[in-house]
Amino acid sequence: TRSYKIAVIPGDGIGNEVMPEGIRALEQAASLFGFTVEQKWHDFAHCDYYLKHGRMMPEDWKDQIGQPDALFFGAVGWPAKVPDHISLWQSLLLFRREYDQYVNLRPVRLMPGVPCPLAGRKPGDIDFWIVRENTEGEYSSVGGTMFPGTDREVVIQETVMTRVGVDRVLRYAFELANSRPHRHLTSATKSNGIAVTMPYWDARVEAMAKHYPDVRWDKYHIDILTAQFVLNPDRFDVVVGSNLFGDILSDLGPACTGTIGIAPSGNINPDRTGPSLFEPVHGSAPDIAGQGIANPVGQIWSAAMMLQHLGEVEAAAAIVTAIERTLAEPALRTRDLKGNADTATCGKAIADAM
Amino acid sequence: TRSYKIAVIPGDGIGNEVMPEGIRALEQAASLFGFTVEQKWHDFAHCDYYLKHGRMMPEDWKDQIGQPDALFFGAVGWPAKVPDHISLWQSLLLFRREYDQYVNLRPVRLMPGVPCPLAGRKPGDIDFWIVRENTEGEYSSVGGTMFPGTDREVVIQETVMTRVGVDRVLRYAFELANSRPHRHLTSATKSNGIAVTMPYWDARVEAMAKHYPDVRWDKYHIDILTAQFVLNPDRFDVVVGSNLFGDILSDLGPACTGTIGIAPSGNINPDRTGPSLFEPVHGSAPDIAGQGIANPVGQIWSAAMMLQHLGEVEAAAAIVTAIERTLAEPALRTRDLKGNADTATCGKAIADAM
Ligand SMILES: CC(C)[C@H](C(=O)O)[C@@H](O)C(=O)O
Ligand SMILES: CC(C)[C@H](C(=O)O)[C@@H](O)C(=O)O
Repeated sequence: TRSYKIAVIPGDGIGNEVMPEGIRALEQAASLFGFTVEQKWHDFAHCDYYLKHGRMMPEDWKDQIGQPDALFFGAVGWPAKVPDHISLWQSLLLFRREYDQYVNLRPVRLMPGVPCPLAGRKPGDIDFWIVRENTEGEYSSVGGTMFPGTDREVVIQETVMTRVGVDRVLRYAFELANSRPHRHLTSATKSNGIAVTMPYWDARVEAMAKHYPDVRWDKYHIDILTAQFVLNPDRFDVVVGSNLFGDILSDLGPACTGTIGIAPSGNINPDRTGPSLFEPVHGSAPDIAGQGIANPVGQIWSAAMMLQHLGEVEAAAAIVTAIERTLAEPALRTRDLKGNADTATCGKAIADAM
Repeated sequence: TRSYKIAVIPGDGIGNEVMPEGIRALEQAASLFGFTVEQKWHDFAHCDYYLKHGRMMPEDWKDQIGQPDALFFGAVGWPAKVPDHISLWQSLLLFRREYDQYVNLRPVRLMPGVPCPLAGRKPGDIDFWIVRENTEGEYSSVGGTMFPGTDREVVIQETVMTRVGVDRVLRYAFELANSRPHRHLTSATKSNGIAVTMPYWDARVEAMAKHYPDVRWDKYHIDILTAQFVLNPDRFDVVVGSNLFGDILSDLGPACTGTIGIAPSGNINPDRTGPSLFEPVHGSAPDIAGQGIANPVGQIWSAAMMLQHLGEVEAAAAIVTAIERTLAEPALRTRDLKGNADTATCGKAIADAM
């Protein structure tokens, strides 16, 4: 039988509460669709580990993780314990680079039963993908300070784009657009203000578009693009953006469809030279951690994306359908969706609905 | 009598169509409130000028502009004629720097009668200010390319923050928050991902907050902040952000209140070492230019902000009230607001309503 090795990293805060529900869905899918899942849980990449060891992960973390088929990740960060830029750069952002997960893929989809903050939008109206560059761009740790602590203080940070890095994520995005019925791609830019890197991004989009004559494409500056997400979310099919712009759009998009609590993401290495990582879009939410009220749908939907990536297409679809059915029941929704269900109730309902 | 010298720069596209309506409101205000306005119109800072002269403005533009009390600006940019980063960096973005207009101030307010894309929000629910840093940060033209045109190509751009630049805009934002009933300030950050400049921004916010013990403040990462604009726009009072984050938020905010067609902005030099500049948030909109259908409210509301800055507080309030009354009439709204009125009809109605 088909078998998959999964590295399980719950991380911080509600990561620990939603992960068991993600696993529940995964095990249910395995038993229904005839494959097995070999889990290895890792007790690092969280802020208590940092407080004990002065770092987020052991030196030999790569050996400990080994060669899994995928990483299943919860959430990381607890600013009262460790500054975010340390906890994140030593865990999630490190995985993305070390495993060359250069695509961050996130769906924006209005699900039946989820209260939509936008007036008059119905399920089916909003259904697109965000493709985010995930290894370079604005997320650099390169830079520094001159004259620290004085009135002359200057702090500089580099945005770095490479031909290789830009082209490969654009190719992925155009391929995805080309595979969808609408064949439409929107590029996020800001070449009017960010005058070096963004005109370069635009030029590479234009060059890549030549290879995909069947894909209609356009570009929007990021400021007006966020406005379009609110005013005309039905206009989009595939949206591609730099690391920062993709980050912003993939919180805004899910918010426009009701909550970021349900949004999943795949940090994908399309060349499969390393494992991909699947995680909810939401963070560790220290404010509600420990109460068992977090929405598990983001984690469970991430399990579906992981199965899709592993080739278990039917199992992936079954999870998404079960999520849709469950969300349609007001009593099974968590508080962020104005329901009363706790994390486990919602998670069990989804597993049962499969 | 009080008299003000205004440099008028309509710019490109619909800038030329909405500017006369801004002027109409200004002249009406002058005659009603007993001051005079001395206009000097400038036929540069538009893309046709560039096509003729190879630059956006004459070499002696500063002399030609002279020492006005304020600049009244339309919109600039026409990408089919001149790449945006050239037209903008040689005009609007240059004014902001040359006149040290280090604050970009933009209201987000749900106006009566404007159809709101967010479900269930009423006028009064959404009413806050965005304070954007306007001279440095991500908007640098510093950077360059290595190995151009090859597979090794690397493009680098610097984000530059200075102690002076960050502190002065934060001081302005805290002062503004301190003067408002809710005394609440929100800082936009991304210190978990942008690991050099953004933790610095956070540290300066924390330091500045010590001087304003009566101001409650919080910070959100820009990704989740855009989500909050959609989900909880009633939560905000004053929002302060870097050049890029402020840019994004001040398109998104107006979109959440119906349209960016009505949003005004002040590019303000609070120290008055140079003139401030007032302009609508929207751009030159080549797609609808020349049809006389653009919404003039952004330009007219910008006139009100200009008068406020010049000390004509009553006149400013009269314009805003006239805008509110006019927008409440469906027949006087432009197409972007699902009305049928053309630019002049809407503009005249506002002047008459004063
Ligand atoms: C046109 C562009 C350069 C400008 C900016 O990004 O500042 C505009 O979007 C604005 O907000 O004034
Ligand atoms: C936690 C943070 C560093 C991360 C990011 O900005 O990439 C998160 O917002 C995400 O979208 O995965």
